[in-house]
Amino acid sequence: GGVVATLFFPDAKLPCRNMRKPGGCRRQHCEYAHEPTSLTRFLDYLGSATRTLDICVFTITNDDISDVVLDLHRKGVKVRVITDNDQSTTQGSDISKFRSAGILVRQDHSPAHMHHKFAIIDGRLLMNGSFNWTRQAVTGNNENVTVLADPALIQSFQGQFNRLWDMFK
Amino acid sequence: GGVVATLFFPDAKLPCRNMRKPGGCRRQHCEYAHEPTSLTRFLDYLGSATRTLDICVFTITNDDISDVVLDLHRKGVKVRVITDNDQSTTQGSDISKFRSAGILVRQDHSPAHMHHKFAIIDGRLLMNGSFNWTRQAVTGNNENVTVLADPALIQSFQGQFNRLWDMFK
Ligand SMILES: [Zn+2]
Ligand SMILES: [Zn+2]
Repeated sequence: GGVVATLFFPDAKLPCRNMRKPGGCRRQHCEYAHEPTSLTRFLDYLGSATRTLDICVFTITNDDISDVVLDLHRKGVKVRVITDNDQSTTQGSDISKFRSAGILVRQDHSPAHMHHKFAIIDGRLLMNGSFNWTRQAVTGNNENVTVLADPALIQSFQGQFNRLWDMFK
Repeated sequence: GGVVATLFFPDAKLPCRNMRKPGGCRRQHCEYAHEPTSLTRFLDYLGSATRTLDICVFTITNDDISDVVLDLHRKGVKVRVITDNDQSTTQGSDISKFRSAGILVRQDHSPAHMHHKFAIIDGRLLMNGSFNWTRQAVTGNNENVTVLADPALIQSFQGQFNRLWDMFK
């Protein structure tokens, strides 16, 4: 079938950022994860985008995630972000960082909530589930993300993304 | 693939309850939906359970949905519900109705949020997405529910359900 992976949260630990540097982490007693976690797998799928990344997520306040998005944008991946108006001015929201970097962002200005949490990677992978892109959700919440490669499903979510993108112009 | 359906919200209208009665709706100017909507499709999938229904949802306050669940329980379907502690005493929560009817309910008493929104029907269908089982989400929010029949995916979510069921004993 089109099921690539299922990621469940909470993770026991947040990932150690030193592991991304040459030489890895040299701390004697590091409290962060050095092994793969649901979040590092999530970041790997997201970071696999080479052409397009369409993000439609209620709230984004997780810097590990937004760093990957900003990196992809810098590498030339065409990133588009739809998010909820109520959340974008929240303390720690990464939306203003995205805007400053030149990423295209559109917001739901209606009283309704834009409550989706999905992303489409290269029109090839759909990530979808209950998981909001926050730091708290990673280690604090029971959450799921499914990673799916079914073409009909992706077409359906891409259609929804495009409709919301036009609606929130 | 294993994709059965994709349901997007908001619906323009809530479904008319008279349509479930013999003779249908006789109101001259009825403001409710008489045609299929995302919610009526959702209710049809849920109501198709014949043996087991495992529900793992943050909050349940939608009476159209809880009526279907209560009906299935009365018909002998083995229903189990996991929900979040913070939400179960909320105004309008249907959890107390479930308990009174004899449905098995377990709650996350930890400070973490049980933020999932999935259900497994007869170990055969998974419903999963962003959609909380509230009335407001139906006509007010942009939400999705995927209905999937992939055996490996269902095994993975069933494992997660069972782990949480044991954990919240
Ligand atoms: Zn470390
Ligand atoms: Zn009517």
